[in-house]
Amino acid sequence: MEKLKKYLSVKDEDNFYHQGAVELLIFNFLLILTILTIWLFKNHRFRFLHETGGAMLYGLVMGLIIRYVTKSPDVESGTVYECEKLKSGPSTLLINITNQVYEYQYKREISHHNVNGHQGNAMLQKMTFDPSIFFNILLPPIIFHAGYSLKKRHFFRNLGSILTYAFLGTAISCIVIGLIMYGFVKAMVHIGQLKPWEFHFTDCLFFGSLMSATDPVTVLAIFHELNVDTDLYTFLFGESVLNDAVAIVLTHSISTYSPKENPNAFDAAAFFQSVGNFLGIFAGSFAMGSSYAVVTALISFMHLTKFTKLCEFPMLETGLFFLLSWSAFLSAEAAGLTGIVAVLFCGVTQAHYTYNNLSPDSQMRTKQLFEFMNFLAENVIFCYMGLALFTFQNHIFNPLFIFGALVAVFVARACNIYPLSFLLNLGRKQKIPRNFQHMMMFSGLRGAIAFALAIRDTGSQPQQMMFTTALLIVFFTVWVLGGGTTPMLTWLQIRVGVDPDEDLKAKAASQSASNLDKNTTKAESAWLFRIWYGFDHKYLKPLLTHTGPPLTSTLPEWCNPVARLLTSPSAYGDQLKDGDTDYIINNDELAENYESSAHTPVPAQDSTGSIQATGKDDIQEGDLGLGGYKLQLQHTAGQPQKNSLA
Amino acid sequence: MEKLKKYLSVKDEDNFYHQGAVELLIFNFLLILTILTIWLFKNHRFRFLHETGGAMLYGLVMGLIIRYVTKSPDVESGTVYECEKLKSGPSTLLINITNQVYEYQYKREISHHNVNGHQGNAMLQKMTFDPSIFFNILLPPIIFHAGYSLKKRHFFRNLGSILTYAFLGTAISCIVIGLIMYGFVKAMVHIGQLKPWEFHFTDCLFFGSLMSATDPVTVLAIFHELNVDTDLYTFLFGESVLNDAVAIVLTHSISTYSPKENPNAFDAAAFFQSVGNFLGIFAGSFAMGSSYAVVTALISFMHLTKFTKLCEFPMLETGLFFLLSWSAFLSAEAAGLTGIVAVLFCGVTQAHYTYNNLSPDSQMRTKQLFEFMNFLAENVIFCYMGLALFTFQNHIFNPLFIFGALVAVFVARACNIYPLSFLLNLGRKQKIPRNFQHMMMFSGLRGAIAFALAIRDTGSQPQQMMFTTALLIVFFTVWVLGGGTTPMLTWLQIRVGVDPDEDLKAKAASQSASNLDKNTTKAESAWLFRIWYGFDHKYLKPLLTHTGPPLTSTLPEWCNPVARLLTSPSAYGDQLKDGDTDYIINNDELAENYESSAHTPVPAQDSTGSIQATGKDDIQEGDLGLGGYKLQLQHTAGQPQKNSLA
Repeated sequence: MEKLKKYLSVKDEDNFYHQGAVELLIFNFLLILTILTIWLFKNHRFRFLHETGGAMLYGLVMGLIIRYVTKSPDVESGTVYECEKLKSGPSTLLINITNQVYEYQYKREISHHNVNGHQGNAMLQKMTFDPSIFFNILLPPIIFHAGYSLKKRHFFRNLGSILTYAFLGTAISCIVIGLIMYGFVKAMVHIGQLKPWEFHFTDCLFFGSLMSATDPVTVLAIFHELNVDTDLYTFLFGESVLNDAVAIVLTHSISTYSPKENPNAFDAAAFFQSVGNFLGIFAGSFAMGSSYAVVTALISFMHLTKFTKLCEFPMLETGLFFLLSWSAFLSAEAAGLTGIVAVLFCGVTQAHYTYNNLSPDSQMRTKQLFEFMNFLAENVIFCYMGLALFTFQNHIFNPLFIFGALVAVFVARACNIYPLSFLLNLGRKQKIPRNFQHMMMFSGLRGAIAFALAIRDTGSQPQQMMFTTALLIVFFTVWVLGGGTTPMLTWLQIRVGVDPDEDLKAKAASQSASNLDKNTTKAESAWLFRIWYGFDHKYLKPLLTHTGPPLTSTLPEWCNPVARLLTSPSAYGDQLKDGDTDYIINNDELAENYESSAHTPVPAQDSTGSIQATGKDDIQEGDLGLGGYKLQLQHTAGQPQKNSLA
Repeated sequence: MEKLKKYLSVKDEDNFYHQGAVELLIFNFLLILTILTIWLFKNHRFRFLHETGGAMLYGLVMGLIIRYVTKSPDVESGTVYECEKLKSGPSTLLINITNQVYEYQYKREISHHNVNGHQGNAMLQKMTFDPSIFFNILLPPIIFHAGYSLKKRHFFRNLGSILTYAFLGTAISCIVIGLIMYGFVKAMVHIGQLKPWEFHFTDCLFFGSLMSATDPVTVLAIFHELNVDTDLYTFLFGESVLNDAVAIVLTHSISTYSPKENPNAFDAAAFFQSVGNFLGIFAGSFAMGSSYAVVTALISFMHLTKFTKLCEFPMLETGLFFLLSWSAFLSAEAAGLTGIVAVLFCGVTQAHYTYNNLSPDSQMRTKQLFEFMNFLAENVIFCYMGLALFTFQNHIFNPLFIFGALVAVFVARACNIYPLSFLLNLGRKQKIPRNFQHMMMFSGLRGAIAFALAIRDTGSQPQQMMFTTALLIVFFTVWVLGGGTTPMLTWLQIRVGVDPDEDLKAKAASQSASNLDKNTTKAESAWLFRIWYGFDHKYLKPLLTHTGPPLTSTLPEWCNPVARLLTSPSAYGDQLKDGDTDYIINNDELAENYESSAHTPVPAQDSTGSIQATGKDDIQEGDLGLGGYKLQLQHTAGQPQKNSLA
């Protein structure tokens, strides 16, 4: 009774006034340390440790301190109580203890084997925060920022290759890791480390899918700083952005793939259901994300006569932009889709349409706000990863499994990059050189997404083993591979100090000079992309932004009244000039590119031959961007004179 | 068993993938609605409903919907289980139910009378978030922003009056509300609505202190929009900022005031302990907040030869600024002090020193970032207040208590404003006119702080009654008083459309022309402030920022080597020009003001007489800012030539 009183008084008085403050303070302290370290490193141009690596290191040390210094085990925990009257687990439990009612909230179900490991102190428990905070609060700004800051010109130039790496590559990686891990699991069963019913093939595939999300944030930061070749940067950036989305949807599909009888057997129906699931979720999330962005664009574009434009109130504009983008994520999650995919495409669409409608003040604000949120969220996650190694209480370190996972991750990365690069090189005029391939192989870092997927559920023993292994692989890749980036760049003789804009022009020029012959073939094969581009340029851009030709000129004549209503007055004036090409580049540049190379002679003969052999099928292999063909869009640029201002 | 399975499967599968997403989405949706409404209102220049009022209204409607549409009461809750083996309430409870172990987390202690009222559905429970989120995450940006955006020139000009209203006024208000409420409580006991032992005098005082935190955000927004007289704006703004701090510390002191025996009797020892407590906490929090700001200033100021300045990396700079300011709050909370006070003075100090060291980019970033966070946090809190009226499950509506509280709040506001204004007018040259006093009386809105203090603990019946009443008073004042601001301004004939800078100059000019005579008397009386100002200008400013005279000229000669090390190279050049006077105004302007009026003739005779009567004691009543006296700082401006660059 005395003890209880003391316990409660501590809870009521001490904790009452600084609930959570200490935990937040620890994170703040770690982040401050990280920032100071980055500053120091930037001064000395140390590139072997990126801020995320530093954050992880500090987290690790802090975790160690919390674990071994603040050891005050709670005697009560670890004891399981029996309540005969209770027939199910309600979400809120009221318990009468010594004539005082206490409210307890349901947290989770615990496997029997974890009950003993559950003796950590209160501090450790408090430092372990809810995985839903990762998903709903920390991840969205990171992914949105990736989409929002995407350099669209370079991205679209290499779209085909990026999609190949992201979709095919991730699928290959997932399957290869799954198969190798299944081999290791069989071996572990053989030597008696695992019971055969504990680890199914689907678990291995699940592990494969979560380990397939690459996160080369360290590498990209160094590339950015050194101005490494733009194509290489774009490959890696595009791949890592899209492959997170693919890996997340894959993980979701695999976790819902449940073969009827034998979990090890292959069930075709369930498999196809999973594939359908994958496609449905991906498409649904894409639609959800883009439609939120389109709504934002429409609101920020509104120019009804009675209304002041929203851009006169930059604060409201920024607020709306922020909230609608976040809502894209939350709505997708609430609808059972994948928020990450939704917020990624929301970011891309916002940059494509809404950004042009924002006031200059809001353009600046949103850019800086998301940059800042990305910076903070990323470092919090990496700090937390470091902390988790010591504060998470149910680690299962299995050396064989960890070794297997390391091997699997590297083999899978090789199976992804080299064969796909070979296939892509068949279709690309501008081949992906060997040193680029080695560099991409080397840049297979794992990071926030892999961790977040692994921590989402750590109830069962296999899940705990996977979580521990994923964490260690993140540590290894971030520190070893991330730290080795600069030496690797030198060793592979990859050129640095490239100006992205100059580079693109130079490449386009050299292409149009040497490979003129492929234009017709390519233009035919990329008809889908061309149709989309034309539609976007003629209808969506004028409808959603102040750029592009006025709708009155692109819509049929009978639509004129509607078109006039929907077109921004400013669209008539500046049809051809597009601002802000520095930060976010409009697709309209594709048209510019076209015009600059329109004067080159008519295509003649293919010299390599391999392209003609693939014919219509090379949509997937060839580049869908302007690297491969020139768009026939001269008519939209020439049309406005036809039906001009009525 | 079937039901349990269903229950758990819902928990595991459905909730697993969108834990918390729905709740966050609801808030996002409310905020989006609020922003769109504000936009609409700004277009039509409606001023009867401020954004916070709108947010509250939408929250109310949403709360109503959640409460009555999603009604799915959880059958299990409301039943109290007995566990004989359990002797105390552990923080984590493991319970074995039908051979499955569940983990439950301690939430709170429940009074027996609440057990039955505890039948809400899961949705209502989820929408009710932890009060610690308010304190640690939502309040700090609001208070910091208030400190950071403080217009120091006007603030210091009226410092004396503001301090009087904030400290004395809040204390008066707290005691008056406490006494009136005690009267009503006695009446309620008399008619049998309350048991005598349920509601002590300290509870009444507690209610008084939490209801004394005014939050005229609506009024201030309208004042800002209409450019109302700067002095009135400054009185209200300064009072509301400081009085939050005072009310919070008062609440803390009262809740720790525990007379030994009879809780209704007056215990002198406990009372003085509380007063000491108040002073100690206030001073400690002040010191904590300012020292974090000083650390930030020092870091951002560092100019060691080997280091690039931090301002070359605006992202790191902004990050550090943000984290250190937040840490000021968290450290104070963790140390048992008051975070709000710490973060307020941290904001003021950051604006005074650090702001001048930041790169222009970071100045912009920090300003916009805090503005944005303030906007979001404020609207979230007001939304939540609206929600809480229907989602909070233990409301106790007592008409007599609510009526009493309304009366008490208005009487207390009157006892605060009118007598203090009278006293202040005795000492002020520029009297506070009657219409200003009425306007201040009218602007006694209650808001976020009162709500946050009331929701912090709602375990007992009196606390629940106080919470319900506080909530209703917030609604009433925000909607009725907030909505009536514009008519009131017209009715009281308060001038609008004033340019703050012009206004100050005009007032200063008229003062120096008519009231020259008071300078000597005033300058003597404000010696403490003068000493501080001189110290700040001569030592702190040069040490912490790039402005002010070089330390080599202000420190004694034997300190020269140290001084040279610590002085920024740029300080030698631009000793007299101070940038950025538009947004945040340096105290150095006090010196400028001085110099411009230094040429006026020597003071002669006092004409009103009332000032001379008060003599040295009018520090508290007179204004400590430049409105009342001119500083004798010519020597610092003239000194640099003496020991110039060695």
